[in-house]
Amino acid sequence: MNIVKKRIGIIGGGQLGKMMILEAKRLGFYVAVLDPAPGCPAHSVSDKHIVAGFDDLDAYLELSRHCDVITYEFEHISASGLALLENDGRLVYPSVKSLKTIQNKYLQKQALRKSGIPVPPFAKVGGVDEIRAFGCPLMLKTTTGGYDGKGNAFIGCDKEIEDAYQSLGGGTKELMAERFIEFEKEISIIACRGIDGARAIYPVAENIHVNSILDTTIVPARIGGAAAKKAALIADKVMEVFEGVGTFCVELFALKNGDICVNEVAPRPHNSGHYTIEGCFANQFENHIRAIAGLPFGDVGLISPTVMVNLLGESDGAARLEGLCDAYLDPNVHVHFYGKGESKSGRKMGHITAVDKTVEKALERAIRSKGLVRVIGENPVNRK
Amino acid sequence: MNIVKKRIGIIGGGQLGKMMILEAKRLGFYVAVLDPAPGCPAHSVSDKHIVAGFDDLDAYLELSRHCDVITYEFEHISASGLALLENDGRLVYPSVKSLKTIQNKYLQKQALRKSGIPVPPFAKVGGVDEIRAFGCPLMLKTTTGGYDGKGNAFIGCDKEIEDAYQSLGGGTKELMAERFIEFEKEISIIACRGIDGARAIYPVAENIHVNSILDTTIVPARIGGAAAKKAALIADKVMEVFEGVGTFCVELFALKNGDICVNEVAPRPHNSGHYTIEGCFANQFENHIRAIAGLPFGDVGLISPTVMVNLLGESDGAARLEGLCDAYLDPNVHVHFYGKGESKSGRKMGHITAVDKTVEKALERAIRSKGLVRVIGENPVNRK
Repeated sequence: MNIVKKRIGIIGGGQLGKMMILEAKRLGFYVAVLDPAPGCPAHSVSDKHIVAGFDDLDAYLELSRHCDVITYEFEHISASGLALLENDGRLVYPSVKSLKTIQNKYLQKQALRKSGIPVPPFAKVGGVDEIRAFGCPLMLKTTTGGYDGKGNAFIGCDKEIEDAYQSLGGGTKELMAERFIEFEKEISIIACRGIDGARAIYPVAENIHVNSILDTTIVPARIGGAAAKKAALIADKVMEVFEGVGTFCVELFALKNGDICVNEVAPRPHNSGHYTIEGCFANQFENHIRAIAGLPFGDVGLISPTVMVNLLGESDGAARLEGLCDAYLDPNVHVHFYGKGESKSGRKMGHITAVDKTVEKALERAIRSKGLVRVIGENPVNRK
Repeated sequence: MNIVKKRIGIIGGGQLGKMMILEAKRLGFYVAVLDPAPGCPAHSVSDKHIVAGFDDLDAYLELSRHCDVITYEFEHISASGLALLENDGRLVYPSVKSLKTIQNKYLQKQALRKSGIPVPPFAKVGGVDEIRAFGCPLMLKTTTGGYDGKGNAFIGCDKEIEDAYQSLGGGTKELMAERFIEFEKEISIIACRGIDGARAIYPVAENIHVNSILDTTIVPARIGGAAAKKAALIADKVMEVFEGVGTFCVELFALKNGDICVNEVAPRPHNSGHYTIEGCFANQFENHIRAIAGLPFGDVGLISPTVMVNLLGESDGAARLEGLCDAYLDPNVHVHFYGKGESKSGRKMGHITAVDKTVEKALERAIRSKGLVRVIGENPVNRK
């Protein structure tokens, strides 16, 4: 089969879509992208860009006409739109069935618990009384649509329940409560599964969040070997449970007693897997493309300790990257700048990766570089 | 300075241009390309494609309007077109002055010899008698326009002179004679020089040619440490001599007695440097972009032994890649497929890179993979 003749469609043209395309292009694939933003990061590297919203079913059908296999860079898209594509005879990976389960955090956790995968205690909660009955401390979550801490609220004691319930849209949105876990570390594993069921599990990454947004990923994670092995087995099982095809991210908690439990699963390449671009022979985006194209996986072993730090916009306005020259005085550092025209305070604008012989040295390089680089917003924004 | 706002123009949209763009895009640069082929490899990843010939001076000026800094993927372009761009206030790297010297193999060798860099004995030759007087064995070369063995002819003895002279266009084209060197190995070094004169020298690569076209690159080269050091010093000096800005390739001969001499210099990233994509933290294309953008270089040390083999078209017609699934059963192998729509027998269509703990093992993987992958031409070609 002339596998490279397959045309790939990607729903979502942000940085994840762009980085998928950069890998697909090395293999000569045709790539079309669906995204509402005319100047989205994927725009300039794609063969075709359908400018339309993620709820525009006609746009899904147009994408279908240009592609043989369709994937997506984030999970908050229209499952019914995807189903149209499947019905239209297109290959959709991960499948609509996988997506529907994962999209809904309650269904996701149910599926995991049913398969014996450790998760924090959780329950659907219809109102304030049920939250109180569940017991504090807990995380209150909307079952759909949350990311980067949005749609989540920590509730430490009963008197915080009412505010949290209102802020998450209680009464109009479906909510779930989850036992708040006193974790030692937040870790994640990028895991890939092929159409044939073959799997590739990347090393365990340690994540540090600031204001609920990923700030730093350290690989290998500074946890014990037994815990790392446990985490890898869990990630592998997660891929089986959801019958995931492509690259997934399994976010986990490492507890003080050595136990591991699943926090959340993302059915796509993930911010905490950006380190794989420099850290591994085959990165998370390449292996995602390989998976959906029916190709075997490239090696996922770690080349050397690698640290990634995110670059968030400091202010609003036309995006401007400063300090790149200074950061590049360190030859072990790579800066990735996504090409978003508009900076917003707290928006993910790029990331920095540093490698070295030890995690400590790589971390030092990454932190020093981050101190030198800034993404600021200049006014006025030229919206095009 | 907001360096990433610089717009880059590339003359030539083949695989080298494409691979430059893939690196430029990681940093968010805008890239315009000038190439006569509407479906050239760089087309789908560039922001703008000016479809025009390399001798179309109006097209050079149009490129100038879209870019701040201009570079090129091959040396057989119009130096006067480039000069227009310099006069138009654009930054052109490598400079017109560097290009003019290197473009002409006679001037190139003269500049090298004058600076004390070892080169084979050479002379301009006006006719058959002068070639005979130079003495066999020799390489007869057109001073401009040659590549992949085209424009070169080996002359072993006097009776071969007449045919070689005619075949290279003697009488109409400027020719030079060069002593044929009994080399032990053909080697090359990718070398980079910044606007500020800073340099980065990649490891020594060993090259095997078949029918005068690069077939295999093995890194590190299987030569002694003293010879490797000598080669690196020569490459470094070459960058000084030509005041090259960007990534260059210095092709060298390693002689049996340990001596090294320069064969040819290319003022651009080179086929024998494709191994750097997997073999080094910062590859030749990335460091080229860094150079022309005024950024310091990324690390050029070898991560692990790496072997590259070229994939040539087997036959003429619409390009079709076969055997990718089989090749990818080896997780240490990357296939690069340039996305040329049309295969021609002997045309460079892609390459394979393999890494391993030893050169021997990497070579074994590369050769095995090459045996599994084919690029064939299917008729009819859909020319678009």
